[in-house]
Amino acid sequence: MSGPHDTGARAPRVLVVNSGKAEAVDRLRAAAPDAGIDVITERAYAPMYTPDVRLHFVEDIADLTAVRRVALDLWARGPVDHVVAPSERSLPAGGYLRSFLGLPGIGFETANRFSNKAVMKAALGAAGLPVAPHRVIASLDGAPAAAAELGWPVVLKPALGTGSMNTFALASPAALEALLGSPEAEGLRRASCPLLVERFVEMEGEYHCDGVVSDGEVAFAAVQRYFMPLLGQTDAFTGSYLLSEDDPAVSAVRALHRATVTALGLTDGVTHMEVFGTEEGFVIGEISCRPAGGGIVDAVRMKYGVDLWRVFMDTSLGRPAGVRGPVAPLREEIIANCDLPVRPGRVLRVSTAEELSRVPDVIEVRMTTRTGDIIGRRLHSASTTGLVFLATAEPSLVAKRVEDLARAYVLEVAPD
Amino acid sequence: MSGPHDTGARAPRVLVVNSGKAEAVDRLRAAAPDAGIDVITERAYAPMYTPDVRLHFVEDIADLTAVRRVALDLWARGPVDHVVAPSERSLPAGGYLRSFLGLPGIGFETANRFSNKAVMKAALGAAGLPVAPHRVIASLDGAPAAAAELGWPVVLKPALGTGSMNTFALASPAALEALLGSPEAEGLRRASCPLLVERFVEMEGEYHCDGVVSDGEVAFAAVQRYFMPLLGQTDAFTGSYLLSEDDPAVSAVRALHRATVTALGLTDGVTHMEVFGTEEGFVIGEISCRPAGGGIVDAVRMKYGVDLWRVFMDTSLGRPAGVRGPVAPLREEIIANCDLPVRPGRVLRVSTAEELSRVPDVIEVRMTTRTGDIIGRRLHSASTTGLVFLATAEPSLVAKRVEDLARAYVLEVAPD
Repeated sequence: MSGPHDTGARAPRVLVVNSGKAEAVDRLRAAAPDAGIDVITERAYAPMYTPDVRLHFVEDIADLTAVRRVALDLWARGPVDHVVAPSERSLPAGGYLRSFLGLPGIGFETANRFSNKAVMKAALGAAGLPVAPHRVIASLDGAPAAAAELGWPVVLKPALGTGSMNTFALASPAALEALLGSPEAEGLRRASCPLLVERFVEMEGEYHCDGVVSDGEVAFAAVQRYFMPLLGQTDAFTGSYLLSEDDPAVSAVRALHRATVTALGLTDGVTHMEVFGTEEGFVIGEISCRPAGGGIVDAVRMKYGVDLWRVFMDTSLGRPAGVRGPVAPLREEIIANCDLPVRPGRVLRVSTAEELSRVPDVIEVRMTTRTGDIIGRRLHSASTTGLVFLATAEPSLVAKRVEDLARAYVLEVAPD
Repeated sequence: MSGPHDTGARAPRVLVVNSGKAEAVDRLRAAAPDAGIDVITERAYAPMYTPDVRLHFVEDIADLTAVRRVALDLWARGPVDHVVAPSERSLPAGGYLRSFLGLPGIGFETANRFSNKAVMKAALGAAGLPVAPHRVIASLDGAPAAAAELGWPVVLKPALGTGSMNTFALASPAALEALLGSPEAEGLRRASCPLLVERFVEMEGEYHCDGVVSDGEVAFAAVQRYFMPLLGQTDAFTGSYLLSEDDPAVSAVRALHRATVTALGLTDGVTHMEVFGTEEGFVIGEISCRPAGGGIVDAVRMKYGVDLWRVFMDTSLGRPAGVRGPVAPLREEIIANCDLPVRPGRVLRVSTAEELSRVPDVIEVRMTTRTGDIIGRRLHSASTTGLVFLATAEPSLVAKRVEDLARAYVLEVAPD
């Protein structure tokens, strides 16, 4: 029987609701070469797209009303079959459009639980899962009382946000007061969402888990450990490495990941979850339902042959996830992905891929910056001049190889 | 343990997201006398509220971004504990606010399924429940093809809307063409949602079912039959009467209601469902998760002692529904509620409650119009000069008593 949204034989029409993940269009084209693609995004991201991509602008991709208006205009030109929301900031609007237009895939409620950290942590806490003690506040006025109640140090951030943007670790009332008096707090002040105050988690290590969910079950979950905690580390070598299957953290993090997916109600898609290792055990940081950034997706593909971008696109297009567990590693080495550090300015000199490939155990280098490029001031935890992938025989060798890489890496900038 | 939204001992703070159901504030005050109440609504409805109600305006109560902005401002003045969304048009925004702010109660996904008829009917159809064949279209341009595909006559309406506003029964391509060329179609053209084209249901009778859902189970469901189909009947006696428990329609409609609640995923609240009786059996029209208008809630209270407004407020406030089935009728008579018909103009003369009380079997009259009042041109199916409640010994007497009432009723208007 032909339903109201039946595609029939024609090529699917796909709306991509996006902020900065322009690569998603290529990923979508790879998964659905015949798809008609329209992208709803913010004007600032336009330069990231090739000229053949049909762009439609809203001022704020989190503005559901504005996104709906553009989507209805696009739909009036022909039926829309799928919505793809590849970036953290576009998750709620993507879910909303699917719910509102009756399209398959992740609806608003689930998208909200996977992006709105206040709601996410309430749901995880209610399910008995370990999250840091926290308070939800409506504005910065509530921060001092919430922090005092939780105990210092605390982390202050918007309930919705990308990476470590507008996220502040605060050691004391004085640090909070200083923040409140500084322009740094502007982002928190203008946030169009509640704020979260969390007790700072003293961690021994930070992990992430990137998974595939199919028919409500976790079909795959790769566990990686960050070189170091992520916060405030833009001028250092950041990255992570895949843990061996027999590392005790792997089964513990996988169990938490499974319970988190169940608690938040994802049935099909990919996940990216952050987990803290503490003296008292593992604590869930947050989880998203989009592919991770940096070199994480590539590292997972190198180790397991699972392409999380492809799974993300397939499930966004209403197809099966195409991954059936358990997935055995394709290779025995420890795969690490490393973000090359960045500094703002005009690039006078930066290592080439060829140069960095000479570092022992480097298996792939992907430079995104060249001499003459301008690196802007708006850095965040995902800023990098390029990605380097390592394959070491032992986990203990990763730190050594990153040191080798740091010695070999050159970045000279002049004030712009 | 004290959660992030724990009310503790203080009085609850409640946001009412509303369009025209100003009576909801009184109902809320009755259920929670100590509540701090703020109402978000549209400016046009301001005159319907008493001056002591704190009103906050958005241009369109369906604009989630605008409603969120006002709600966050209100929340910044102090924590919000509950959101009450008593009107059809405010259901999605109410659900969205609850989901977004992590508040208990009906979230966006459920609110959307109970208000967005395109999504509702897709879900009901997918659950194998009887709905009229339909097509979802993005704009009026798609109407001719959709109607031709479905077969005439059809009903054309916005996926979201109140009562019979902007709803058109169309017998033929010519009727559709005439509509498309007329200013009447303006509402459909400006609708900020998809449109629905449905095959017109040839009905033998129209029913409604008003229920209480508690912990995912239907605890109560009253089945009433409309005097006549509702569409285009502003200048006639409309209303409905409660069917006897042994009427065969009662168990059939209750079963459909139960299946509908399950399919759409309501766990706690009230419902108002419309059902068509056809030659081929019952067909679900639509369902909402708010109390019905007109005299329906009162009729249910008179017959069963169940106050649907109170249940609605209690469940909106996170309290138990307070109704446990099966609920036995309090009285044996057939209770009917009747809307007195209305005509635009200045009222020269209108029956008084005293006059209408003399009609046999009338048990209560509630006039809302007096001599000198102006009745506006913007009539819809819920427009009335007053409500009359009847209690007859037999269902077959209802029609006769409504005729008696029609003979006794006087409404004289002069052009305004």
